[in-house]
Amino acid sequence: MKLAIDEERLARELDALGAISSEPLPVVTRVVFTEADWRGRAFVKQLCQEAGLVLREDAVGNTFARWTGREPDLPAVGTGSHIDAIPNAGRFDGTVGVLGGLEAIRALARSGVRPRRSIELLIFTSEEPTRFGIGCLGSRLLAGLLDRASGVRLQDRDGITLDQARTAAGFTGPLSGVPLPSGYYSAFVELHIEQGPLLEKRGVGVGVVNAIAAPATLRIRIEGEGGHAGAVLMPNRHDAFLAAAEIALAAESGAKATGAVDTVATVGVCDVFPGAVNSVPSRVRIEIDVRDIDGARRDSVLEHIAQALAETAQRRGVQIHSETLNADPPAQCAPEVVAALERACDTHGLRYDRMISRAYHDSLFLARIAPTAMLFIPCRGGVSHRPDEYAAPADIARGALVLAEALGTLAES
Amino acid sequence: MKLAIDEERLARELDALGAISSEPLPVVTRVVFTEADWRGRAFVKQLCQEAGLVLREDAVGNTFARWTGREPDLPAVGTGSHIDAIPNAGRFDGTVGVLGGLEAIRALARSGVRPRRSIELLIFTSEEPTRFGIGCLGSRLLAGLLDRASGVRLQDRDGITLDQARTAAGFTGPLSGVPLPSGYYSAFVELHIEQGPLLEKRGVGVGVVNAIAAPATLRIRIEGEGGHAGAVLMPNRHDAFLAAAEIALAAESGAKATGAVDTVATVGVCDVFPGAVNSVPSRVRIEIDVRDIDGARRDSVLEHIAQALAETAQRRGVQIHSETLNADPPAQCAPEVVAALERACDTHGLRYDRMISRAYHDSLFLARIAPTAMLFIPCRGGVSHRPDEYAAPADIARGALVLAEALGTLAES
Repeated sequence: MKLAIDEERLARELDALGAISSEPLPVVTRVVFTEADWRGRAFVKQLCQEAGLVLREDAVGNTFARWTGREPDLPAVGTGSHIDAIPNAGRFDGTVGVLGGLEAIRALARSGVRPRRSIELLIFTSEEPTRFGIGCLGSRLLAGLLDRASGVRLQDRDGITLDQARTAAGFTGPLSGVPLPSGYYSAFVELHIEQGPLLEKRGVGVGVVNAIAAPATLRIRIEGEGGHAGAVLMPNRHDAFLAAAEIALAAESGAKATGAVDTVATVGVCDVFPGAVNSVPSRVRIEIDVRDIDGARRDSVLEHIAQALAETAQRRGVQIHSETLNADPPAQCAPEVVAALERACDTHGLRYDRMISRAYHDSLFLARIAPTAMLFIPCRGGVSHRPDEYAAPADIARGALVLAEALGTLAES
Repeated sequence: MKLAIDEERLARELDALGAISSEPLPVVTRVVFTEADWRGRAFVKQLCQEAGLVLREDAVGNTFARWTGREPDLPAVGTGSHIDAIPNAGRFDGTVGVLGGLEAIRALARSGVRPRRSIELLIFTSEEPTRFGIGCLGSRLLAGLLDRASGVRLQDRDGITLDQARTAAGFTGPLSGVPLPSGYYSAFVELHIEQGPLLEKRGVGVGVVNAIAAPATLRIRIEGEGGHAGAVLMPNRHDAFLAAAEIALAAESGAKATGAVDTVATVGVCDVFPGAVNSVPSRVRIEIDVRDIDGARRDSVLEHIAQALAETAQRRGVQIHSETLNADPPAQCAPEVVAALERACDTHGLRYDRMISRAYHDSLFLARIAPTAMLFIPCRGGVSHRPDEYAAPADIARGALVLAEALGTLAES
């Protein structure tokens, strides 16, 4: 077969999807079950239909677009990613795996093959934790790894529950129907921008991912004592914000203390109450994100943070409540899928590096139920989750080519 | 003369004013030039009219209610405070000085005297810095201590300028007409809750204030570098929130380092951008409030913070912009007004303590243009700027009695 990616068309479609945002360009904000998410979904589904794929949506809005193979009863080969985007994000995170996956399927079709196994494009709901505080919502449910009780408890900052939000978006039916049956996919591959600087630095066009870092998210509420900023003397203070400041610095030092480059910790959210210049903060909420490729090492940072919480609470006389929103184990990729990706690179004479994924992805959860691997392409400066996130059309097309080659092979096996 | 305070009526009026809030009770939020502020003003002006006082408002909404004396051309004696309230505040901060001042005037009138000098109740606009970032807006203008350029620059978080807000509230005319003429008041006294624990702890009902602490406010913008919380390695980070955390802790250590109980520093505002759990903070804004009764000592804390800003900016590779919103000198109270307050306590056989004001007040600015002192009453637990702020009706009435006695004396002198 002769595979050819339509680089220009793919770039144009990424541009068009990137323009669907709840904020003015170049900022991409496409939070799950908002109007921008809805328009993004409609755009992608239209393209899938034009490509002749058969569409299906589940109760949480995961969208499946299937190219039926010669033996439709065999487990399918899956590929895909997400189109939701955090506030102030860019155009390539997730979307490259969705539109690149679609173009890979179109390239296979154009080459004249009809695969043995069906090939299915999957658009996951809410990979980003922005709205409901938990990442990989759709893939977590597909893998059966979100229990009913937790799903029912999920709500956004305005108190809208997941059930209310998905129903309003038109996705009804019980969440219990979402988990995929065992053996649904014979293999799954996700194409994604690296979101790190390594490929660009090394001048290598393709990364074959053999492990995905393990994320943990803590939501921490600190209750101190408020009061007048002029009148409450320093020794009498129980300032919730200063406690939060110490905890954030402890998270940083905990991540650095492992000595491993793969350990990261971030405090990205800090809400201060009452938030007046002349009022001692009485309540603060922070969220901490901790990741590592090594689960035990990640957990050692969580332990370091837990100690800091206890020590800070006692020393400052504040109450600290810590809730673990998620603490998932890392995933190893499937050797046979990794091998298929490496062979695809070799077939096209492309250099590649084996690497780990420091960001987490829906593949972390797909890896629990299917042989899974990921394919990375470079992004400029390693920048992601920012409006200036950028991947070159040629790099995207190269990734889609390797993906198409690997999907074709995996679908014949 | 026989002075008697109507304790029950005063408590009832304070209750009624406390119920005027933009949030449900017991939370008092009455930000300047909002609908709640407007209703609060209307309530107080109605009471002043019922008491036979002559009303006048200036271009920034400072409200004067005058009881004309026997010699109306003499400089008047002033009293008053503010009715605006920060978000999530209580019922007594400011309002005790306004309604207690009104009741003091009514008590003098009921006693049958007509004073030699006019006695004027003053309700200051925007003592709280909530909306425009600068405290004591009305009194600052009355004292001629806000230059035209600064006044024009003032705007709230939504970009509404002071001029737009005051015009929409019905206060027009040039701000240049606001400063009071020299010698307008022969004396000024402000009654206020202590907003600190000392009077309650000592079981003393009245505090005579002989100095007012000096506030300084810094607005600090930190520009770091954002990115994906999983992918940006710790050594490569320029996290704006961690810089803010260090600055907040430096402000605390700077205040503690003076060794003086009167030095306080607070970070009450922290806005994090983009504010997503999986995104390294790229921009943070904090506001720091530093106060002391000793101007040089307060400035030593500002210097400590400035050093921390420079050190943090360099070490973390972030840009830090610091703006001094205000840095006022402390005020000494006028000995003759302090003496009048002490004599008033003696006349009624009341114990009092001389003390300083750690909170700042409109009196800080009145002290620049008139002989000024303050009168404190206890508040429960020293708590202020919180919904559970509380002063007992008997304590409030005792303060109003001393105020009435002193106003009567000062108006005869």
